[in-house]
Amino acid sequence: MEIQKLTYLEVQERIKKTPMAILPMGAVEAHGPHLPVGTDNYLAEGMAKKVAEKLDALLLPTFSYGQVWSLRNVPPSINVSNTHLIGVLTDIGKSLYKAGICYFVIINCHVGNMVAIKEAARKLYDEHRDMKVFYFMYPGTAEIIEEIRESKPMPGGYFHACEIETSYMLYLAPEYVQMDKAVDEFPDLPEDFQYTPTPWDQITDTVVLGSATLATREKGQKIIDKAIDTIVNILKKHTQKKIREVLQ
Amino acid sequence: MEIQKLTYLEVQERIKKTPMAILPMGAVEAHGPHLPVGTDNYLAEGMAKKVAEKLDALLLPTFSYGQVWSLRNVPPSINVSNTHLIGVLTDIGKSLYKAGICYFVIINCHVGNMVAIKEAARKLYDEHRDMKVFYFMYPGTAEIIEEIRESKPMPGGYFHACEIETSYMLYLAPEYVQMDKAVDEFPDLPEDFQYTPTPWDQITDTVVLGSATLATREKGQKIIDKAIDTIVNILKKHTQKKIREVLQ
Amino acid sequence: MEIQKLTYLEVQERIKKTPMAILPMGAVEAHGPHLPVGTDNYLAEGMAKKVAEKLDALLLPTFSYGQVWSLRNVPPSINVSNTHLIGVLTDIGKSLYKAGICYFVIINCHVGNMVAIKEAARKLYDEHRDMKVFYFMYPGTAEIIEEIRESKPMPGGYFHACEIETSYMLYLAPEYVQMDKAVDEFPDLPEDFQYTPTPWDQITDTVVLGSATLATREKGQKIIDKAIDTIVNILKKHTQKKIREVLQ
Amino acid sequence: MEIQKLTYLEVQERIKKTPMAILPMGAVEAHGPHLPVGTDNYLAEGMAKKVAEKLDALLLPTFSYGQVWSLRNVPPSINVSNTHLIGVLTDIGKSLYKAGICYFVIINCHVGNMVAIKEAARKLYDEHRDMKVFYFMYPGTAEIIEEIRESKPMPGGYFHACEIETSYMLYLAPEYVQMDKAVDEFPDLPEDFQYTPTPWDQITDTVVLGSATLATREKGQKIIDKAIDTIVNILKKHTQKKIREVLQ
Amino acid sequence: MEIQKLTYLEVQERIKKTPMAILPMGAVEAHGPHLPVGTDNYLAEGMAKKVAEKLDALLLPTFSYGQVWSLRNVPPSINVSNTHLIGVLTDIGKSLYKAGICYFVIINCHVGNMVAIKEAARKLYDEHRDMKVFYFMYPGTAEIIEEIRESKPMPGGYFHACEIETSYMLYLAPEYVQMDKAVDEFPDLPEDFQYTPTPWDQITDTVVLGSATLATREKGQKIIDKAIDTIVNILKKHTQKKIREVLQ
Amino acid sequence: MEIQKLTYLEVQERIKKTPMAILPMGAVEAHGPHLPVGTDNYLAEGMAKKVAEKLDALLLPTFSYGQVWSLRNVPPSINVSNTHLIGVLTDIGKSLYKAGICYFVIINCHVGNMVAIKEAARKLYDEHRDMKVFYFMYPGTAEIIEEIRESKPMPGGYFHACEIETSYMLYLAPEYVQMDKAVDEFPDLPEDFQYTPTPWDQITDTVVLGSATLATREKGQKIIDKAIDTIVNILKKHTQKKIREVLQ
Repeated sequence: MEIQKLTYLEVQERIKKTPMAILPMGAVEAHGPHLPVGTDNYLAEGMAKKVAEKLDALLLPTFSYGQVWSLRNVPPSINVSNTHLIGVLTDIGKSLYKAGICYFVIINCHVGNMVAIKEAARKLYDEHRDMKVFYFMYPGTAEIIEEIRESKPMPGGYFHACEIETSYMLYLAPEYVQMDKAVDEFPDLPEDFQYTPTPWDQITDTVVLGSATLATREKGQKIIDKAIDTIVNILKKHTQKKIREVLQ
Repeated sequence: MEIQKLTYLEVQERIKKTPMAILPMGAVEAHGPHLPVGTDNYLAEGMAKKVAEKLDALLLPTFSYGQVWSLRNVPPSINVSNTHLIGVLTDIGKSLYKAGICYFVIINCHVGNMVAIKEAARKLYDEHRDMKVFYFMYPGTAEIIEEIRESKPMPGGYFHACEIETSYMLYLAPEYVQMDKAVDEFPDLPEDFQYTPTPWDQITDTVVLGSATLATREKGQKIIDKAIDTIVNILKKHTQKKIREVLQ
Repeated sequence: MEIQKLTYLEVQERIKKTPMAILPMGAVEAHGPHLPVGTDNYLAEGMAKKVAEKLDALLLPTFSYGQVWSLRNVPPSINVSNTHLIGVLTDIGKSLYKAGICYFVIINCHVGNMVAIKEAARKLYDEHRDMKVFYFMYPGTAEIIEEIRESKPMPGGYFHACEIETSYMLYLAPEYVQMDKAVDEFPDLPEDFQYTPTPWDQITDTVVLGSATLATREKGQKIIDKAIDTIVNILKKHTQKKIREVLQ
Repeated sequence: MEIQKLTYLEVQERIKKTPMAILPMGAVEAHGPHLPVGTDNYLAEGMAKKVAEKLDALLLPTFSYGQVWSLRNVPPSINVSNTHLIGVLTDIGKSLYKAGICYFVIINCHVGNMVAIKEAARKLYDEHRDMKVFYFMYPGTAEIIEEIRESKPMPGGYFHACEIETSYMLYLAPEYVQMDKAVDEFPDLPEDFQYTPTPWDQITDTVVLGSATLATREKGQKIIDKAIDTIVNILKKHTQKKIREVLQ
Repeated sequence: MEIQKLTYLEVQERIKKTPMAILPMGAVEAHGPHLPVGTDNYLAEGMAKKVAEKLDALLLPTFSYGQVWSLRNVPPSINVSNTHLIGVLTDIGKSLYKAGICYFVIINCHVGNMVAIKEAARKLYDEHRDMKVFYFMYPGTAEIIEEIRESKPMPGGYFHACEIETSYMLYLAPEYVQMDKAVDEFPDLPEDFQYTPTPWDQITDTVVLGSATLATREKGQKIIDKAIDTIVNILKKHTQKKIREVLQ
Repeated sequence: MEIQKLTYLEVQERIKKTPMAILPMGAVEAHGPHLPVGTDNYLAEGMAKKVAEKLDALLLPTFSYGQVWSLRNVPPSINVSNTHLIGVLTDIGKSLYKAGICYFVIINCHVGNMVAIKEAARKLYDEHRDMKVFYFMYPGTAEIIEEIRESKPMPGGYFHACEIETSYMLYLAPEYVQMDKAVDEFPDLPEDFQYTPTPWDQITDTVVLGSATLATREKGQKIIDKAIDTIVNILKKHTQKKIREVLQ
């Protein structure tokens, strides 16, 4: 299932059976005093593995470097510009197309990546009308989050390393969570926060937007499983469908 | 040591102690019937881990997508163009600089990446004269390879998934090697092979250039350990040296 | 107030008094059988004029060409790529900076432009830390829209040429609305609509997403006036503030 | 006729009848103490309207931001680089082509735009051999200008906000001309003026190159009408010609 | 004088004395049945040599590849895009600046290069305000050409491989002129020739625009010597002037 | 044979006979106290001429500006970036293709150009599968150099303006060699020389890496003739082969 572990001949066989490849995508980014900087990568990997298993799809190696503008001033956040991200993602998509992949699925857990992902997906759409690119970031979870959350949401819906995201980690990568260091922070956002570029180091001391202390594994599991269900349901109908003649 | 597992505060502490970060870099590329397509990534990761341990340096998440022109026609090889690779590597370097890293070390195991790596290193050199970028691809091993190898080298020094590279894998990631499927291939290279663009699917049936069957763990260990020694010796003098005032 | 009508000497005087410039931004885009293709431009212009008046700020000529991916297949929609939009907006911002403008305010009425606008704002932020770029798209109106709307919202919050947008036009540019041609359309969105590139000509026959027939001038006025209040309140504190020495 | 005022269905009908679209193009640029900074935009719009009427062609919204190198140091001139202008113009042309336009006519009144316009036209020529792009900047007026002008021409043919251009404004947008502030300036150009980059703020105090006081509406009308005749005559044979199958 | 023939130490000495470098620039382009395709390069080289001698300036190797849009369809014309030309010229200028050159003089004999040259000059102007870039294309010759020419000029002033240009070659590189093959062609230009992209293979059979048969060495000498005088006079005051501290 | 000297009609005839064009490529670069800065250009031109003669191929004008990173700090070295070099070379190749050239042969004598040349060759390969691009830099000479050389090679194989290269010049362009100024320098390379960007002005005082004093014309002739033989043998089979229908 992990493409990296298979020989090229084994991969080619699998693509003939299930022409779908899944790319986990995250970032290296500050996530508060209790979460590791690889949080988004661990979450993307964790979700992508589960999806790949359920669909017998190929799991690509994680793309661990994302667009991190808001926290770029908090070391060691690593920030890749949209232009370069779009370029690399488009190149990856082209090679997958060439390999016979009909469904290129990006499971992203870092919101800063969405602009680049959508743009790359559109470029690939124009070049390869017979390959579908999907991008998912916790799809179908708005309702269940509302039900489950105990802390009040931040105005504008902003959140980071909070009750929700920490719960995800407690479910998918608990070994890297230090709950004893979890904190709550509900910074007052300046009135123009959404309307002018504002690096987050100007608004937060802890890099936590919300209540990390309220996180639990159970909350994480419920939301993540819902997200995975959503993804799997959408993709299921595509797993064995070839929408074009496979090259090679 | 793995940056991904640490919180941003822990990383900041470590950078103060040892301002060095190590990036393993490989590719997804066909590697014959016996080696996985993640071979270059496993090798880079394996070596980088050992180097990071010896130097107490930070290990960055592997950059798993490289420039794969020569085998781009053999699925599922994934080919990222030099332009985009250079962009992403340069962005990573800039963020590391901002985080106080003085030594950005790229351990690369895919020859196709060298052009992009060198160009990125030069760009970073121009922007941040007080950060050094190192790039290593099995340094200091020419002699020992000559001693150890039993198969004759290919003309022009080309090799791929052969006695040498398979030996590396038997040392660093044996669980993914299927020696029962190992083959030997010494294709006749066309006379103009080095002098005009020639995709390798035109010259090889097995994607092996050399003798995979002669590979052993011992050979791999000797060469890889020599490479690691070379790297460690060069870097050792730098591990605790700050060549500038650290931001933040 | 309209920069175009003033001589350069008059503009220089005004900038000394109020160093703020307002750019209306829209698109040429299909807007159903009842709204003109310049709808987004008329709305942006209408709002920008009111804001400029209230703040005694300079009104720039409308930038009438936007990023129109979703409806690019419905002529005569005109689609400018993000890359080029970002370039032009950044250039405009640099010249405004040079002219002594401290507050560059973009009033945008086409959602497809937001990616380019934000990216341009970030670029200008990096170059000119002492000029603030604001971008507004009907800010502060979520609640009042919820109160006023009679039609049910589309799933996912999508809307176009509907009760809301048509009401805006009835308030700001009623001379170009043909209510006798207004229609309602609530297309079933495919399950993967948000997760894969989907041009809207695949989902709508009329280019209306919602109920245009329910639009009224009163609804438009309430929402637009709320948006303008929001903008004016945020900007008011800045109108006479110079955050740097004016060149020239 | 103004595309912005029409619905997309109305525009589609008109394109079937007359597949021609006209883009007025100018700049925001200092034009002396008597002319507004929108001068080039007003002139382009004024001419384009007359041409569109005579030919029953679609009038596009004015592109109001141009390449203003020579006066970029005189605020509030707004300078867009050639690269970005070329990008946007090419994108506009591609969308027009998609909409069935066979004749894309750019009426430009700012000489600094010509490089970008020609380059964009050539790019469109290469992509869409069956769409013609025209670019006009006061065509066919050399002789009549020579006849009419009372002031001596500047060496090298340079002129700006002078007898000629002010006359144009007195004809097409007299409401924005303040003749009481008109001045004459005939700066001595340095010997190497044409041969090395020389911003005009180095040579003029008033941003007038020539004699603005000699301008009259009659002069403007004669020259502009000649330019319009030239344009109309060249385009007339094309107004109803479809040179390809219209998409749609 | 020819930089290529000198050692780097000798060049450094000369730059200290005369900080001026001259770049001849032409193109490989069809020039009728009687002139060689290197015509523009020979002319630029010939003129540049004379100028360099008179001013004791350094002569750079000829840049022999230019922007040849109009005749790109007539083999073996070689067409380099503006973007790439601008890049290379700017790079050359930066290195010359680094070497202490204060006056970078481009002597160009191919009109298609002017856009790229001017743009490169402006970029260098912005980066190195203390280096002047000059560009000359037969400067100061309008009057003498009018006096000397026996053939009537083409409408619009177009000319190519004609009385004038052939005369230049008879003066500067007569060994490559085959006057027995010289022809005259005065093609009727389409009315819209100046207003829409029109490759010249659509208007000429011989690639001659004008009367090649009327060319004489004497005519060439008079005009070229006038151009050289103009250049030399403009540059003379600069030859020994250092406008900044020389690096190195 | 020199394309520049021929008319376009003569060139077209020759291409029909031998569809091969040869581009000499070098650089302007410091080459020690005894060799001229045009050394690489003279060598490339000298070799290219001999090859063109033997194969009756067209000789293109020398491309005299290369990528000179290592010595860019030693004036008057001229350094063109890879990006721009790739652009120009690709454009040249496209025009040659259009002219009917089936074999585009680059004879390069400056190692810094190889990255750009290979990348350009790959781009042309993708666009014009039926044109072959060859690139040669002293091919087939490793053995003979080993035999002939009297000085010890530098570690890492680095060399510059040394026994070997000076010998080449004594054979191909002796008139520009000042043997009385020849020096030997064998700088100690820092241990990390190959592994981090290191401008050569940090390691050498004379810009000579090796022993220039040991150079002789005979050595140069033997090696160069071997290189030419290698090139000619590889190309010979192609000289009269048309691999596609020639345009025009």
